[in-house]
Formats: sequence, C-alpha cells, structure tokens
Amino acid sequence: MSVRQEFLDTFGEIVDVLEAEMGAQGLALPPEAIARVRRCAEYNVPHGKLNRGLAVVECYRAFRGAHSVQALGARERQDAYWLGWCVEWLQAFFLVADDIMDGSKTRRGRTCYYLLDKIGLDAVNDALLLEAHIYRLLRQRFRGRADDAELHADLVDIFQEVTFHTELGQMLDLTCQAGGQVDLSRFTEETLHRIYRFKTCMYSFYLPVALGMRLAGERDPQRYRQAEAILVEMGKFFQAQDDYLDCFGDPAVTGKIGTDIEENKCTWPVVEALKRMSDEQRAVLAANYARRDADCVERVKQLYREVGIPEAFPAYETQSYQALQQQIEQLRPEMPVGALEFLLNKIYKRSK
Amino acid sequence: MSVRQEFLDTFGEIVDVLEAEMGAQGLALPPEAIARVRRCAEYNVPHGKLNRGLAVVECYRAFRGAHSVQALGARERQDAYWLGWCVEWLQAFFLVADDIMDGSKTRRGRTCYYLLDKIGLDAVNDALLLEAHIYRLLRQRFRGRADDAELHADLVDIFQEVTFHTELGQMLDLTCQAGGQVDLSRFTEETLHRIYRFKTCMYSFYLPVALGMRLAGERDPQRYRQAEAILVEMGKFFQAQDDYLDCFGDPAVTGKIGTDIEENKCTWPVVEALKRMSDEQRAVLAANYARRDADCVERVKQLYREVGIPEAFPAYETQSYQALQQQIEQLRPEMPVGALEFLLNKIYKRSK
Repeated sequence: MSVRQEFLDTFGEIVDVLEAEMGAQGLALPPEAIARVRRCAEYNVPHGKLNRGLAVVECYRAFRGAHSVQALGARERQDAYWLGWCVEWLQAFFLVADDIMDGSKTRRGRTCYYLLDKIGLDAVNDALLLEAHIYRLLRQRFRGRADDAELHADLVDIFQEVTFHTELGQMLDLTCQAGGQVDLSRFTEETLHRIYRFKTCMYSFYLPVALGMRLAGERDPQRYRQAEAILVEMGKFFQAQDDYLDCFGDPAVTGKIGTDIEENKCTWPVVEALKRMSDEQRAVLAANYARRDADCVERVKQLYREVGIPEAFPAYETQSYQALQQQIEQLRPEMPVGALEFLLNKIYKRSK
Repeated sequence: MSVRQEFLDTFGEIVDVLEAEMGAQGLALPPEAIARVRRCAEYNVPHGKLNRGLAVVECYRAFRGAHSVQALGARERQDAYWLGWCVEWLQAFFLVADDIMDGSKTRRGRTCYYLLDKIGLDAVNDALLLEAHIYRLLRQRFRGRADDAELHADLVDIFQEVTFHTELGQMLDLTCQAGGQVDLSRFTEETLHRIYRFKTCMYSFYLPVALGMRLAGERDPQRYRQAEAILVEMGKFFQAQDDYLDCFGDPAVTGKIGTDIEENKCTWPVVEALKRMSDEQRAVLAANYARRDADCVERVKQLYREVGIPEAFPAYETQSYQALQQQIEQLRPEMPVGALEFLLNKIYKRSK
C-alpha cells in the first residue's frame, strides 16, 4: 500500500478514535453533537494536498535513517501518520477561521465551511474544536511513552509555539493595512517577509519538519535552528507563489477565488510592482487597490502586467529554487535532508 | 494593600511582560501590532467581576493553610495572581468569540469588542491570541520549576482539558437547537444540565479551584474529583442565575442585553416554564420563541410570568444555596473549603 493511502486510511481511524472518546462515559455527548464534530473534521481536514502531513512522515523517515517509509515498523509509521494528521488538523483550524475573517467563498474547490447551511458564525467554535482535537490526539497517542517520557510535552510545546507565531502573522497581515486605508508605503519587502515568516513559514514548513525530527528523537537545538533557517526561506518562496496564484492563478486549478487586491493585502505582486512603478502608476494603483469592484481589481492586474510581474515571477521562482537547493546541499551530509527536498519538490512550479 | 488591588496591579505587570516579549529579538513585532495586542488585552481581560481569578488565589491560600493571602510570601502571591489572570484571559477569549457567534451588542456594560471601529471579524484572531497568551504566561512563569518539575505540564493539561470541555459545551448549546427550528421537546433538564456542565461549570468553577490546588502542590486525583462534583453543582446554580438574569435581570446592572429567547437557547426559565405549562401555553411559546421581534420576546416573558417563573427562581436559589452549603460542610475538615465558600458567597443572590 502506498504511503499516501496508508496516511489517508489513518484519517478514518483517527476520526473514529475522537468519536469514541466523545461517546464514552467521561463525555457521553449526544449523537447530534458527535455527528457535528465528525462532519466538521471530514469536511475540513483531509481535502488538501496533504504536503504538510506527509512531510512529517518523510522527515521522520529521513531522521530515522530508513530507506523507505515502508521499512519502518507498523507502530512507528502510525506515530508519524498521527503526527502528520495533527498538522493537517492545525491547517484546517486556521483555514476555517481565516475564511470567516476574509469573507472567502471557496476553499479547495468547495464552499467554505462557514457558508454551509446552518453553520454560519458558529464555525468559530468548530474551528476552536479542531484546534482542541490536536491536543486530544497528542495526548491519546504520545503521553507517557516509557521510551521517551518528554515526547508528549515537547510536541505540545512545538504546536503551541507555532500556533502563536501563526496567529501573530495573521495579526501582522491585518494590522499592516492601516485600518482599511490604502497606504502603499506600508507594502515593503521587510513587512512582506515578516508576515510570511510568522503567518506561513512556521506552520507550513518548520512545523512538520520539527515534529518529524522530535518524533525521531532529535533533541539538539542547533539542528532545529538550521532547519528553521532554510524552512523559513522555503516558506517565503511558497507564500510568494501563493500570492502570485491568488492574482494570476486559475481558480479552477487553485480551488479558490483570490481576494488579496480587494482585501488590501501586502503581497509579493504588489511589493514587486511598486519597485517598478512610476509615480503616475503608483497613483493609479492607490486609486484602485482595496476596492470591492471587479473593474478596479482588473485595473490593478493590468498595472501588474504593465510593469512585468508575470515575467518577473518565473525568474524569481527559478532563482529561489536554485538558492534553496544550494542551502540544502550545504547541510548534507550531517543533516538528513529528505524532508527538505520533499517539500521543495512539492512546491516548485506548482499551479495550485 | 488589598488582595484585589494587588491582583489588579499584577495585570499591568503581565501585559508589560507580554509586550516586552513581542518587542524583543525573537519576535521583534512592529509597534502597531504590539499596540493591538495591548489594546485587546486591556479591553477584554480585566473588566469583569474577577471572581474566577480571585478564586484561584483563595483556593491556593486555603490549600497552603494560610490564614490570609497577605501571610503568603511575595513570590507565592505572584504565582497565584498570574494563574488567576490566566483564568481571566481564558474567560476573555471565550467572551470575545461567543459575542461574535451570538451577535451580542454589549458585554460588561460596554460595546462588544468585535463591534469596535476597525475590528469586526478580525476579532476571531484576537480571540485566538488571547488563548495563546495563556500558554505564553504559563511558560514564562511556571516552566522548569526546580521545586515542582511537573507543575507547568500539569497546568497546561488542566487548561487544555477545561478549554475542550467549554468548546464542547458551546457546541452542545448550538446543536440542541435543531438548526434554528423551535423544538420544545429538546428543552429538557437533562439537556440543560449537560450544557451547563460543559459550557460553564468546568471553566468558571472547576478550573480556578483545580489550578489553586495544583499550585499548592495537591496531586491526589480523589481530591480533584471531590472538588469537581461540588463545583459542577455550583456552576449549574450560577448558570441558572445567568439564564434568569438574561431574561428578567436589569441590563443597567448586568451590563448586557439578554438574547436567549431570540437565540432559541435552552435555558433554566424555558425548561422550568415547560414543566408548568398547559398545551395551549406550549403552543403560544412555540409560536413566539426564537423570533427576533420585541413583541414575541415580550409574549414569551409574559408566559413565564403566567406560570410563576419569577416566584420559582428565588425558591430554587435558596434551595440550591442550602444544598451547596451542606455539601461543603460534608467535605470539611479533610478538605480546605475556603475557595468553595468564596465562590458560593460571590454568586448567592447576585444581580449581575
């Protein structure tokens, strides 16, 4: 069976475990509540690309020095799959909450959860429950391990640290907008990279690798710092792609309709475009940015085209890819770089 | 200085610590982001009755066997104050999120946070940050204690457990409503007590006492179970008051405008009223409950009056108070009951 299939099968087992816990004596919740939790998890957790979850598995394999995931024991594979799903649960928690805040319509090609019939803003609590599940799962599977007594506490610590960073990143994303006003002077590379680092890099790149390392028994802080340095760069590259696809991607492929321009977001295209714009173009940008009007959005995209953003992006992509490859080479052979290569190859030239 | 004043002063110190952490090298957030975090904490955390926070302090005192809080050392008092504020932070997190979900207008006599200028649904993320702060504070103050190595992990565990229960309670509250339809058959005492237990009792009553006990070094699970049993009863009594005040309290005193009838909530008044109603009265209730119409709400309140709810409540209150006093007496002298008496006296005959 493929790793991906085994990973997917584990999702079903995990939901069954959560459901059993909620029905058992301690909680004894009524059927409609249990059904809601199952529905929320099934709707929001497993429909992404699963790169984050599978990166945990790949990193664990690499740090265990196994040639393949299948070469690991059944219990070890399950440990890695559970931890991978915890990352996917965190992602689901963030996406449900972000879609509410951003007023998004679609996600992963489907209606956003909060827009489903009879859900609405109650989705805020469902998001909180998705977050809480992570700690139920960590507890259920990793607490009190005789062979690694600190494993559970360290995993909880990593999740809390990264969650905090991500929430700070979301706040940076919101506060950089000067209260709905368009202030182009705020759209700098420094601001952009700070938002990227906090909002995306930590949970999408550092987290899976840190978890895989810790599960494999790695405890040298220096190794975590080395991994973080390169994973933050990889995350910036990924988020720049995301911003580019939000603007120029095909919604039929990305599964979501971009709203960054309307939402007054600080993004890779707007920061790059500003570097290339005349004062006249800046004025047109200022007049059309952050308006919920299809003509204004189109005018902004046209400006981006005028200053060559669609050509600049592939060049940036190639350059970033090569730089990241070099950084990975420098870590070899002291550091198992399997997860770094896995992640880099998953994102290079992606269209969704 | 009074305990209350010392406790309030500690709030200022804690916000300064959070602010310093966000400005320091590891995070290095820009001033507008730090200002937003401070504003969110100052607006939402310290304006309640502080009973939950002070109950931690009182429970710690009782379990340490001190005659007064002032008799404890300065460092010990600070430990208890910090832990008390963590409970107030949790409360703030829940209230910000609940007000969004319930569409509330006022809270503690002021505009709900999400309704402030330029906040809106971004308040979801601010609520998440309030939650994250709890774990920053626990970490900052309690991690790696030489005299109690497990203290930090146990405190994290208690908070996570209680948070999960509360979120399940919020979900029970929402799912008992059969999707916006009025189904009076769902408004039973069993349902009501389950919602109370999960949504209110654990975080408002059990949590402060459990934290105070743990900080004082108590580790006997039996003691926690004994405390939980009585605190759940106290919480049910408290929430029944809350439901009664939502309907018949004075908004000028309670600081909030009740919406339970409009929101189709399962509450003490509706469950008690249903026990006393004729089929005709039930039909009128069904026709007027859960409508956003002032006349319908008034018709429901009139029905409550017809079946004697305003008279039934003080009788229930006296009876509950006496039963709780008896339960407390039965625990004495093996168990320090100071926090139980403190909480009971704070809530008896309250008008807000």
